[in-house]
Amino acid sequence: MFEINKQLQKDTHYLIKKDGFHLLLHKNASIPWVIIVPETDVIEVFDLPQSQRQDLNDLTKQISTYFQKIFSITKINVAAIGNVVSQLHIHVIGRKKGDACWPDVVWGNECSFVEWQTETIKQIRVDFA
Amino acid sequence: MFEINKQLQKDTHYLIKKDGFHLLLHKNASIPWVIIVPETDVIEVFDLPQSQRQDLNDLTKQISTYFQKIFSITKINVAAIGNVVSQLHIHVIGRKKGDACWPDVVWGNECSFVEWQTETIKQIRVDFA
Repeated sequence: MFEINKQLQKDTHYLIKKDGFHLLLHKNASIPWVIIVPETDVIEVFDLPQSQRQDLNDLTKQISTYFQKIFSITKINVAAIGNVVSQLHIHVIGRKKGDACWPDVVWGNECSFVEWQTETIKQIRVDFA
Repeated sequence: MFEINKQLQKDTHYLIKKDGFHLLLHKNASIPWVIIVPETDVIEVFDLPQSQRQDLNDLTKQISTYFQKIFSITKINVAAIGNVVSQLHIHVIGRKKGDACWPDVVWGNECSFVEWQTETIKQIRVDFA
C-alpha cells in the first residue's frame, strides 16, 4: 500500500493520480509548483525504468505547457533533491522574472506566501485530468 | 560553434566532452558537483530528444556511481534550473549527511569553500574518460 510521505502531504494540496504518478500542488500560490510522486520504491530519478522516465518527461512537459498558458511562466525548474524527504518526488516549478523568489531557487527561501483559492485548485484538477 | 556560458566556465573546472555533453566540475570541492552541458540550443531538459535524454540519464547514473564509490555520497541531487544562466545545464550533486550544506540545497547557500587539488581533477578526468 503506497503512502505519500507526511511532510509532502503537509506542504501540498493533493491534485490527482495520473499514469502511476501522484500530482501535488505546493501550498504557496505565489509560485506555481507541482510535485510529482511516482508510485515506486526507487529513490533516485535516474534509476526509474525507461518507460516510467518517458511518462515522467511527458507529464513534466504537460505541466510546463500548462504553467506557460495559465501563469505566463517563462522558465521551468525541474529537480529531484530528497535530502529531507527520501521518498522520490520531482519538483516542477514555474518561474518568471520578478516572481516571489526570482532569480533564487525556491528551496530554503522565504518566498512570500499566498494561499491558493479553492476554486483554482478545483480547476487545476479538472485541467490536469 | 558551441560555447559554454561564461558564468558556468567561471564557476567550474572543465573535465571532458563525452557523447555530446560537456562535463564541468564545480570549483567548490566540499561537495562533489558536476554540471552537464549538452551541446544544444534547447532550453528545457524535457524538450531534449528521447535519445539524448537516455544518454543524459546514463551519464547521470555513471556520475552517481562514481560519487558513491569515491566520495561515499548517499544521495544525488539532480536539477535543471537555469534562472540565471539560461544555457541548458544539469546539476548532478553528491550529498551526504553532515556535508558542508546538509540538508539544504547548494544553490544560494554559502557552503564552506575548499579548493580541488589539481591531481584530483586530473584523476577525475581520467576516470570519466
